[in-house]
Amino acid sequence: MSLDSVLARVDADLNKATDRLMALLRIPSISTDPAYSDHCDAAADWLVDDLRSIGFDADKRTTSGHPMVMAHGEGSGPHVMFYGHYDVQPVDPLDLWDSPPFEPAIEDTPKGKVIRGRGSSDDKGQLMTFVEACRAWKAVHGSLPAKVSIFFEGEEESGSPSLVPFMEANREELTADVALICDTGLFGESTPAIVTRLRGLLGEELTITGPNKDLHSGMYGGIARNPIRVLAKIIASLHDASGRIMVPGYYDGVEELPPKIAQQWNDLGFENAKFLGEVGLGLPAGEDGRTGLEMIWSRPTCEVNGIGGGYQGDGFKTVLPAKASAKISFRLVPGQDPLKLRESFRAFVQSQLPDDCTVAFASHGASAASEMSTDHPAFEKARAALSAEWPNEAAFVGCGGSIPIAGHFKQILGMDAMLIGFGKDDDQIHSPNEKYDLSSFHKGIRSWVRVLDALSK
Amino acid sequence: MSLDSVLARVDADLNKATDRLMALLRIPSISTDPAYSDHCDAAADWLVDDLRSIGFDADKRTTSGHPMVMAHGEGSGPHVMFYGHYDVQPVDPLDLWDSPPFEPAIEDTPKGKVIRGRGSSDDKGQLMTFVEACRAWKAVHGSLPAKVSIFFEGEEESGSPSLVPFMEANREELTADVALICDTGLFGESTPAIVTRLRGLLGEELTITGPNKDLHSGMYGGIARNPIRVLAKIIASLHDASGRIMVPGYYDGVEELPPKIAQQWNDLGFENAKFLGEVGLGLPAGEDGRTGLEMIWSRPTCEVNGIGGGYQGDGFKTVLPAKASAKISFRLVPGQDPLKLRESFRAFVQSQLPDDCTVAFASHGASAASEMSTDHPAFEKARAALSAEWPNEAAFVGCGGSIPIAGHFKQILGMDAMLIGFGKDDDQIHSPNEKYDLSSFHKGIRSWVRVLDALSK
Repeated sequence: MSLDSVLARVDADLNKATDRLMALLRIPSISTDPAYSDHCDAAADWLVDDLRSIGFDADKRTTSGHPMVMAHGEGSGPHVMFYGHYDVQPVDPLDLWDSPPFEPAIEDTPKGKVIRGRGSSDDKGQLMTFVEACRAWKAVHGSLPAKVSIFFEGEEESGSPSLVPFMEANREELTADVALICDTGLFGESTPAIVTRLRGLLGEELTITGPNKDLHSGMYGGIARNPIRVLAKIIASLHDASGRIMVPGYYDGVEELPPKIAQQWNDLGFENAKFLGEVGLGLPAGEDGRTGLEMIWSRPTCEVNGIGGGYQGDGFKTVLPAKASAKISFRLVPGQDPLKLRESFRAFVQSQLPDDCTVAFASHGASAASEMSTDHPAFEKARAALSAEWPNEAAFVGCGGSIPIAGHFKQILGMDAMLIGFGKDDDQIHSPNEKYDLSSFHKGIRSWVRVLDALSK
Repeated sequence: MSLDSVLARVDADLNKATDRLMALLRIPSISTDPAYSDHCDAAADWLVDDLRSIGFDADKRTTSGHPMVMAHGEGSGPHVMFYGHYDVQPVDPLDLWDSPPFEPAIEDTPKGKVIRGRGSSDDKGQLMTFVEACRAWKAVHGSLPAKVSIFFEGEEESGSPSLVPFMEANREELTADVALICDTGLFGESTPAIVTRLRGLLGEELTITGPNKDLHSGMYGGIARNPIRVLAKIIASLHDASGRIMVPGYYDGVEELPPKIAQQWNDLGFENAKFLGEVGLGLPAGEDGRTGLEMIWSRPTCEVNGIGGGYQGDGFKTVLPAKASAKISFRLVPGQDPLKLRESFRAFVQSQLPDDCTVAFASHGASAASEMSTDHPAFEKARAALSAEWPNEAAFVGCGGSIPIAGHFKQILGMDAMLIGFGKDDDQIHSPNEKYDLSSFHKGIRSWVRVLDALSK
């Protein structure tokens, strides 16, 4: 019973595994802030040392930004490439944290024990589930059940500037039979999930200029064009009353869900009211006639992430501003071409612009959606392995966010990626008081033990 | 030739008068920002000292906000009450100023010398034209040609919260035969103007709340309500395609111009293209079928003075914000009831709010429009006096801005107000690089010398 003995080893070693995670969490590896650059380096060093202690051939690779960690462990069977990221989000607003973000601790909560601290869920806790699974295999059997490579990035929270160049420069070393990515969550409390659909992202910023300076709204109000009103009208025109996006050609290539997947999603018992109620909302705001899961997993969106113009300080200023701007993002689904949609969006804005206004655009990224081919046998093997660990059957699900690494594995290396993670909706990633359930960590390690076992067969 | 000798004194004293104005301009009396409260106080002190040096019985009166300055000068003849305001607008965006806003300087420009600095035109330079006229009368004759009272406010740029209570509490002291207000401009380059119509102002701030915290646009985008989009839709709904304002009842009580006034305005030769071209625009943006002067002088407006929500920093953040807010102002015309329109506006916003959003309103003032009764003999006397100083005949005009004090003088004190000012359209009031032409200052002082002389007869 080789599998059972490894699982038993995981259970016995949990306290020490938690201590190791704590040590990694204490390193404030905030990638977006240059002041934390040395700490990013320290986190990479910590991982290299830990992987070497398990027997991996591990080292740190310099980039023009923060270093990558690469590790290879010998084993028979298929070759898997595991990806995670050791960098974390900034911690502001710091005053909303109930405990210091880089002094992690185990806390008892009404829902069970949690590991509290920045990065506990996103993504240090998650990546350590895999490392601990490998450690347990090695401890029990002296070897891994597969050839295992590990690839940790340190810039995921700051736009991954070095990722694509690094992957292109190291194609051979990074190519395996299948990629494993641990940066996603369970569905609900206890349904393991393999993400097979990821939305892409098109980020645009537009600045509308009307008058050549700020004007007094008494002297000019009524006769002069107000760029805030122009911008508001354009934003209002982006959706029709049914929630459909009005950018011409926006839905070109967007397909309906395969009935089998649609059925699976319906079976998940997602409740709009519960999901929205947790954040103080109540009414699904997407397209009429779509389920909540479709709205976040399989339908494209157009959202305004920021808007600004005129006087925003205390009090009042009767100004007609020269400029107004907005940051707009489109979550894309398979079939949509980000570059084509960028052109279409810009033309749509231009077409609504009064003749005495101008618009300037800035691009904030354009990545296509990803759809995994679940025909690869690894997908069904992993689904069965996860179903054995958790109370509920594992499901193939979508993810509303963008995890570009999955697309890169496919496009640059021709490799399918399985996104398996153990985060929960209330983990507060990117927010104050981030946490990772101790049960996510524990059962996450056990899950990888089972997945590695299944893939080796 | 008592008048000529006073005018000669004004000419001889111009440099010193300019130095005095500079000293006042160096005090950053921004009334809307509590951080500048001490400076507002200092500006009031400076004025009290200066008025006492001329022989006025002057002092500072505390209010719950910034202080008032009251001064009385004895003289025979009618009693005039002069009003101005010593507070100024904020200076942001500071990086668009070519010189520090509170380090005023005389600059040579292709159109002549200008006094550059925040408040040079609005309203410190203007109020000092009257003070200097009084100083010249006193210097030459040892007395004033009329009983002169002076009333300076320090909250005009922040909604005048203390003004009405102060006027109501000091009715007797503030009542004179006629009020003089210097906070307006010439028509064009050299046509003196007496404003007989002033628009009122209703200032509203609305903050729309959707989710109870900022959300990740990947996890929630599509299903969760975005308050920026809700706000944009409401703003877009405030006007129809013809430029009419859609708040129910908004045009109740609004009358067409009397034909005589309409004819006067047409005779002024106002050119939309020229007026708008000076600020980089080209197309009149008001109601279809209205002249440019109607748009700014006799038609009510609805403008957005500021908008903000979500992430506005560098780069991009895929956030669905919890809140979005806007500052909206309505320029009102005679016949409109500001308090009724406030209720109507708020109900209009509420009616468009999705059930899972809330809106909070803040009021930034509500003042009705004013229309002067030009039958008062002072109006024709002043018109003749101004016509003697300037190349063109003086005209009765409208003003798009809101100078609520004019309405207060009428409604609270039963006193007609003459609005006479020397600003120019290119003074950049409320904008970076505000200036006041040295000729406005000089001929402004001479104009008041003549008006005081005319009123005394």
